[in-house]
Amino acid sequence: MKETFIKELTKVELKNPIMVEGLPGLGLVGKIAIRYLVKQLKCQKFAYLYSPHFPYFVLVNKKGNVRLLRGTFYFWKNEKGQNDLILFTGDSQAQTIEGQYEISNRILDMAEQYNVKLVITLGGYRMETKDKPKVIAAATSQNLLERALKANAIVSPMGSPIVGTAGLILGLAPFRKIEALSLLGETRGYLPDPKAAKSVLEVLLKILNVEVDLSDLDGEIAKAESMVARLQKIEEKRASQAEEMRKSEDKKITYIS
Amino acid sequence: MKETFIKELTKVELKNPIMVEGLPGLGLVGKIAIRYLVKQLKCQKFAYLYSPHFPYFVLVNKKGNVRLLRGTFYFWKNEKGQNDLILFTGDSQAQTIEGQYEISNRILDMAEQYNVKLVITLGGYRMETKDKPKVIAAATSQNLLERALKANAIVSPMGSPIVGTAGLILGLAPFRKIEALSLLGETRGYLPDPKAAKSVLEVLLKILNVEVDLSDLDGEIAKAESMVARLQKIEEKRASQAEEMRKSEDKKITYIS
Amino acid sequence: MKETFIKELTKVELKNPIMVEGLPGLGLVGKIAIRYLVKQLKCQKFAYLYSPHFPYFVLVNKKGNVRLLRGTFYFWKNEKGQNDLILFTGDSQAQTIEGQYEISNRILDMAEQYNVKLVITLGGYRMETKDKPKVIAAATSQNLLERALKANAIVSPMGSPIVGTAGLILGLAPFRKIEALSLLGETRGYLPDPKAAKSVLEVLLKILNVEVDLSDLDGEIAKAESMVARLQKIEEKRASQAEEMRKSEDKKITYIS
Amino acid sequence: MKETFIKELTKVELKNPIMVEGLPGLGLVGKIAIRYLVKQLKCQKFAYLYSPHFPYFVLVNKKGNVRLLRGTFYFWKNEKGQNDLILFTGDSQAQTIEGQYEISNRILDMAEQYNVKLVITLGGYRMETKDKPKVIAAATSQNLLERALKANAIVSPMGSPIVGTAGLILGLAPFRKIEALSLLGETRGYLPDPKAAKSVLEVLLKILNVEVDLSDLDGEIAKAESMVARLQKIEEKRASQAEEMRKSEDKKITYIS
Repeated sequence: MKETFIKELTKVELKNPIMVEGLPGLGLVGKIAIRYLVKQLKCQKFAYLYSPHFPYFVLVNKKGNVRLLRGTFYFWKNEKGQNDLILFTGDSQAQTIEGQYEISNRILDMAEQYNVKLVITLGGYRMETKDKPKVIAAATSQNLLERALKANAIVSPMGSPIVGTAGLILGLAPFRKIEALSLLGETRGYLPDPKAAKSVLEVLLKILNVEVDLSDLDGEIAKAESMVARLQKIEEKRASQAEEMRKSEDKKITYIS
Repeated sequence: MKETFIKELTKVELKNPIMVEGLPGLGLVGKIAIRYLVKQLKCQKFAYLYSPHFPYFVLVNKKGNVRLLRGTFYFWKNEKGQNDLILFTGDSQAQTIEGQYEISNRILDMAEQYNVKLVITLGGYRMETKDKPKVIAAATSQNLLERALKANAIVSPMGSPIVGTAGLILGLAPFRKIEALSLLGETRGYLPDPKAAKSVLEVLLKILNVEVDLSDLDGEIAKAESMVARLQKIEEKRASQAEEMRKSEDKKITYIS
Repeated sequence: MKETFIKELTKVELKNPIMVEGLPGLGLVGKIAIRYLVKQLKCQKFAYLYSPHFPYFVLVNKKGNVRLLRGTFYFWKNEKGQNDLILFTGDSQAQTIEGQYEISNRILDMAEQYNVKLVITLGGYRMETKDKPKVIAAATSQNLLERALKANAIVSPMGSPIVGTAGLILGLAPFRKIEALSLLGETRGYLPDPKAAKSVLEVLLKILNVEVDLSDLDGEIAKAESMVARLQKIEEKRASQAEEMRKSEDKKITYIS
Repeated sequence: MKETFIKELTKVELKNPIMVEGLPGLGLVGKIAIRYLVKQLKCQKFAYLYSPHFPYFVLVNKKGNVRLLRGTFYFWKNEKGQNDLILFTGDSQAQTIEGQYEISNRILDMAEQYNVKLVITLGGYRMETKDKPKVIAAATSQNLLERALKANAIVSPMGSPIVGTAGLILGLAPFRKIEALSLLGETRGYLPDPKAAKSVLEVLLKILNVEVDLSDLDGEIAKAESMVARLQKIEEKRASQAEEMRKSEDKKITYIS
């Protein structure tokens, strides 16, 4: 394995497929969104992506079995609509610049092979917010961007870069005559953020004209919020203890003198 | 895209073209200078340079459209003179050593293809100065250097390295039998420095024997200087507050004892 | 040498060989274990592995002779049992991500060439413990894992990664239809840890059904423990001196006031 | 230039040449030694080595002319003895691990091409010493090492690594059936150290059985020592000022209380 490569598990016939990508990144937004879709739509694996640019460790599952880091392609047959789906997520982004370009290109190779005309990449957008996370959109064409805006996304502020695979796919897609759209959910980004993932999914599903019940995400959101609250309490306690300490130090100095 | 490559947009016929390069670097001097020329001379794009050695993000423009980082080649037909121009600038320098060599060589491939005999690279030279920025010159031949000195450049101090693409092009050009000259404007280098870019352009235009009105740069220079002044005031205020703080701490200690 | 390569010293015929790998890592557990086996079983060298991904220095031996960093393959003819052994250890792990993948693949090339069906990788597992170090197992198949558990290994906690060559071999082996097992001895990991190596060897020998007297490791274990004790005393002394210092500083302040 | 390459300037016929290498490293010992030989023996350049693994800047000479970083091969015709010499030095070592291996191999390609049977690498060995610097030797064979010991070198302590090109050449030479010896002068290593270079040259010239007047190095040694003395005075002054400061702070606290 000198280069990133794709191992196909089965051959599938797909009807006008749209590809949706979400690797780990800010708030794990893209990965949470893809995993949720895979589960709810009962998607099936059909290919793995391996790369020597992933980190050099392996993962152990709960049975003690081991596997290489990888990306996974899933497909979903859309019985009611015009577009089947290819979903892609994985364990990690590439660890080197050249690896980032290489992996983004391998994903687009797969898109070309399945005659994909549109790739949508999902991710997070760093923003301190207490409101419902907004979804930022950027695209390779004005038409496509407007489809996202109609689905309640907002335009990305000019000049803000989109980092990693979610961005590079948009940069590289036009070389293949493929259109690409990025949907980024506002997130503080430090912890897994299912709330941002839900916002992203709402926009995505509207664009795809696919119905998926998102209420199963609410349990995860509640858990994530209670963890944030707990961490904030710990932080406040630490801060007030530090304040106490400072005051008692002040007194001590007073007594000494 | 495993390697840096150039995508030509149109074929152009150029008459004894001179190439002028200015990528982002110290004080953005080279990039500001090239962009100003492109605008004033109404130059036209004719090729892009893409590279997996650029940073792994994409840029979003004001309409929400996205593009890969790239370099751009422009041309200008010189109606009155002997030499047409090829101008090159871009979003970023390469992020790896090997990438720096590779991109400099691709730029020189383009120079060879268009039968360029002279490449001039523009950049900044770190120097604390309040006077009009001087322009430092270095060249692949003594003749060429003297052309720069006659145009009011001064000789680069011995042993001072020229870092990045502006330097490597000079190092690599002789392998192609191409002459190369570097013009570096004195700059503190922390902020975009249109004043240094203006100095560089004055020397460049004299060498090229091309007339361009540089007065439109004065607005940018005034803006940049008022920003520097503002930053200095903030810094002075911060320093005097720190001094106040120190004094009041001294008093506090006195009271305690 | 643009790539990792193997230099065979002699051709050997091996009967159903099992390969055991142990490069330097946490507590040097894998390397200590392999070196002990090599010595006790009087194994013979038969190949070296060289790589431009090893660190760029050479080692000097006690006679003043020099050699490149390398890995070494040893073999052992098993007179009483079904499986001969190939042992592999070396001076260093690869220093780059791509090098880690490349070296692990070269080791597996060697395994394929000798028709190896099972590779066992040895290493350390970071854990603060005063008890006899446990041995953590992870494997490419459930069957294989159970062989390790019967030999007193315990299952690796889910999600904990196995870093470096010991891990990547497990990740890459299935592409070659080779089974692989990792045995990791609990170790604090800061110093060479022969005690963890002994635990690992006990499990390994049980799996291999090979008898080796491990008592010669006890001298090394005693030495290592006395060094740890010495370091702890130094640390305690340092801490108590710092405490003394703090108290005398307190007094000084009191006198001053 | 995707790879390190050698550009030959002239073809030369050499009689049983020995190659001596000294790139910049600890105390610049190797480079100072080679440059001194080049000057005293009036050696002639005959080839350059260029590499994309050198740092990405170019150097400006006193005339304002520019050149790429490079290594230079010189030759010397030995009228009185059996062995001509090839000397190699340069501006820099490679900046990446793979580059270190690649450049060392290109140097050995050149050695093979000229039928060199012995390469001697020069460098520094970090040691705090006020005595005449000793010269540490390491070699690819016992015979060769003994030649160095007879010339007053001492054996390298076991296990101490030789870092960089000076070391890798020794590690890689045996693959070409070339013998190699490293001579390392003791140096503190922070500043250019002509004294260590002189020690190394004394041993080298004895081994080569070539006579070169080393007294011209004494001026450089005196200059280097006066600079060290000056730096030490500055350091002592700084330390005593800090002590003064501390004392006056103590008093200030006393007055306050």
